[in-house]
Amino acid sequence: MVELIGDERLDYLLAENLRIVQSPSVFAFSLDAVLLARFAYVPIQKGKIIDLCSGNGVVPLLLSGKTKATITGVEIQERLYHMAERSITYNRLEDRIHMIHGDLKDITQTLGHGKYDVVTCNPPYFTSAEPSIINENEYLAIARHEILCTLEDVIRTSSQLLRQGGKAAFVHRPERLMDILTIMRQYRLEPKRLRFVYPKAGKEANTILVEGIKNGNSGLKALPPLFVYDDENQYTPEVREILYGKEE
Amino acid sequence: MVELIGDERLDYLLAENLRIVQSPSVFAFSLDAVLLARFAYVPIQKGKIIDLCSGNGVVPLLLSGKTKATITGVEIQERLYHMAERSITYNRLEDRIHMIHGDLKDITQTLGHGKYDVVTCNPPYFTSAEPSIINENEYLAIARHEILCTLEDVIRTSSQLLRQGGKAAFVHRPERLMDILTIMRQYRLEPKRLRFVYPKAGKEANTILVEGIKNGNSGLKALPPLFVYDDENQYTPEVREILYGKEE
Repeated sequence: MVELIGDERLDYLLAENLRIVQSPSVFAFSLDAVLLARFAYVPIQKGKIIDLCSGNGVVPLLLSGKTKATITGVEIQERLYHMAERSITYNRLEDRIHMIHGDLKDITQTLGHGKYDVVTCNPPYFTSAEPSIINENEYLAIARHEILCTLEDVIRTSSQLLRQGGKAAFVHRPERLMDILTIMRQYRLEPKRLRFVYPKAGKEANTILVEGIKNGNSGLKALPPLFVYDDENQYTPEVREILYGKEE
Repeated sequence: MVELIGDERLDYLLAENLRIVQSPSVFAFSLDAVLLARFAYVPIQKGKIIDLCSGNGVVPLLLSGKTKATITGVEIQERLYHMAERSITYNRLEDRIHMIHGDLKDITQTLGHGKYDVVTCNPPYFTSAEPSIINENEYLAIARHEILCTLEDVIRTSSQLLRQGGKAAFVHRPERLMDILTIMRQYRLEPKRLRFVYPKAGKEANTILVEGIKNGNSGLKALPPLFVYDDENQYTPEVREILYGKEE
């Protein structure tokens, strides 16, 4: 049993045998979080993973299906943190996923430097420079706009949390590619794998997945493009598999 | 008539009604040059275009089919410069394409700053750091390795040659994407359009096309991916059209 508040639902978490608490008016995960969890390299048997801007904990929950490592999630919004906590308890993952209600900007004061093998983050995509387009719903505004943390905060913190050779995986928008790559290099997270996600063939990309290595050598791989929809506006086989698992 | 030296051939220049002097042992253009000429924005009616690392003049020749602007080519190797000159004469393009035999590193001393609308360049891809893999053929080594100019030389010179708002288009390898984007921004050539070229679906990209605007605003578009071969190892329709023109 799980306590559901307001318009919260206990949704199925897609390919995994998991359920997740979410709500259309507070927070519901997007395809981007699913793509990030699939894209990120994770150690299989052991290690320490941390997910920043965790929201309702979707990325830690998805990663728990790929690894036996311990996973920490950090979320600044108490309401979302509370949703994540309830999902973790419902799925009996308390011994593997640990949520922190806190601000990533000073999280290294508690968690220290250089302790993590992997960082993941699906950060707010939009700068806070254009107040007119900021969502009036505060929960969604904070999740989507750089109100409480900027891209630089995310990347600086990620780099500090990682050990030498540790990996950080981010999902973002192509418009910000220059910023993300420049700031990653500035904080010694050398970009190594880049994947563009296109809504369909012939369209411009609308999402990027990028992985950097702490103090890695330069040299980037551009992975095959990922198309979300086919010409009939159905999910492509690759996305269907990511979402619903392999078909028998 | 055109003088041909050694193993030089007078090849057809693909979709255009042009011929081009080239030689397997000295210089023959690659698909990358063709993709660059197609990718680059050029003014249709008038303007000044300059192509750096011009080789046998393939990019100026291809661009002459897209624009009435004047086109300058710069090539440091006299042998290649001479091939370009003969192709230009053969195709009667002397009034539209002008080749300079010179070093791009000091070309602004003669050509000045801020005079060009468009710069194109298919530079050497490989650093000169690994002498063991440098081609023993000096012509090809100089064309492919950063022996006489580095990526930074190319980008700095391109930026100096361009007027405010002018565009520079480069073709390069994905491994160098970080360097190219970082150096472009350093010299105020803000990357605006990026296209990845994949040998075929499901493979990593092996070529990038990138366009920057002198003193442009940040904000990058990731264009649809370009696949060279289909699953049967035939050119895809898009590449066939670039190479051989529209089928009737």
